[in-house]
Amino acid sequence: MTPTYINPRDLPHRSDAVVWNGVAYLPGVMPRDGTATLAEQTADVLAQIDALLALAGTSKDMLLTATIWMNNVKHDAAGFNAVWSAWLVPGRKPVRACIESSFQLPGLMEVMVTAAVPG
Amino acid sequence: MTPTYINPRDLPHRSDAVVWNGVAYLPGVMPRDGTATLAEQTADVLAQIDALLALAGTSKDMLLTATIWMNNVKHDAAGFNAVWSAWLVPGRKPVRACIESSFQLPGLMEVMVTAAVPG
Amino acid sequence: MTPTYINPRDLPHRSDAVVWNGVAYLPGVMPRDGTATLAEQTADVLAQIDALLALAGTSKDMLLTATIWMNNVKHDAAGFNAVWSAWLVPGRKPVRACIESSFQLPGLMEVMVTAAVPG
Repeated sequence: MTPTYINPRDLPHRSDAVVWNGVAYLPGVMPRDGTATLAEQTADVLAQIDALLALAGTSKDMLLTATIWMNNVKHDAAGFNAVWSAWLVPGRKPVRACIESSFQLPGLMEVMVTAAVPG
Repeated sequence: MTPTYINPRDLPHRSDAVVWNGVAYLPGVMPRDGTATLAEQTADVLAQIDALLALAGTSKDMLLTATIWMNNVKHDAAGFNAVWSAWLVPGRKPVRACIESSFQLPGLMEVMVTAAVPG
Repeated sequence: MTPTYINPRDLPHRSDAVVWNGVAYLPGVMPRDGTATLAEQTADVLAQIDALLALAGTSKDMLLTATIWMNNVKHDAAGFNAVWSAWLVPGRKPVRACIESSFQLPGLMEVMVTAAVPG
């Protein structure tokens, strides 16, 4: 048995998802338009995560963990959280950590999640 | 089968623990009193982790991973490590990474762990 | 059943690898010589990861995730990625996130991976 590597664009540095032993691992996802509003960038990141979860055979009601990096936690956490919390499925919320990166990301945030894959 | 989501306070942004496939995932845990000493803040974080591990049906002798973020690694790593190492169970130490966050956390550190859940 | 804790040097703060339920967890790995070139430091980190994966009973063709912290993403990401991508096994690339730590690491980067362990 080996993990399932999902890399449809044949990216050189990483896969788009890896599935092993009932868990889907996703890469850090950044907004595609760093000039959009905070709400738009958050929604775009979560839409990309929805698509990657589907590629991996799962969905947001199976989330396990989330690691969130922001350029400016103090400035952006509340706006991010409003969109984030509305996106989560009640009773199915992942654990998470929210941290600031000293590198100015091309967008306002990067989000990396894992999810269970139904057996 | 779905993961077990443990969220007794019904937090909007995350759960307090998620258990899936023999692994307990915990959120990033911060000290409750950011004015306490480094040793006190570390002990408080580890006490909260003990309580969350118990909620998830496991304990610190089953730790797998730890990610530690500090406001000031150079200043605080030695003091943190003294309390951390005394808390760990000999022969049962997790892997870990210790990183600095550019955001000034409300306390001196944040610690996120995973642990095995006995089957 | 308990995890397998691999800590041959009896390090006080962490193990060198932990294996549980088909997954090997490795610690954050830093270059041994912070004065070497970027390419040398990257190669050294990856060589250390190869050795830790072998200790855990697996290898780089089973990678699941990678978290990469750099002192200076803008300056060093391209040079890191060249060595990283050549090291990866085609069709077996992990997911990853690459983040900057505000702490000046003793070397230019730190890399933490997980890998599947063949059953």
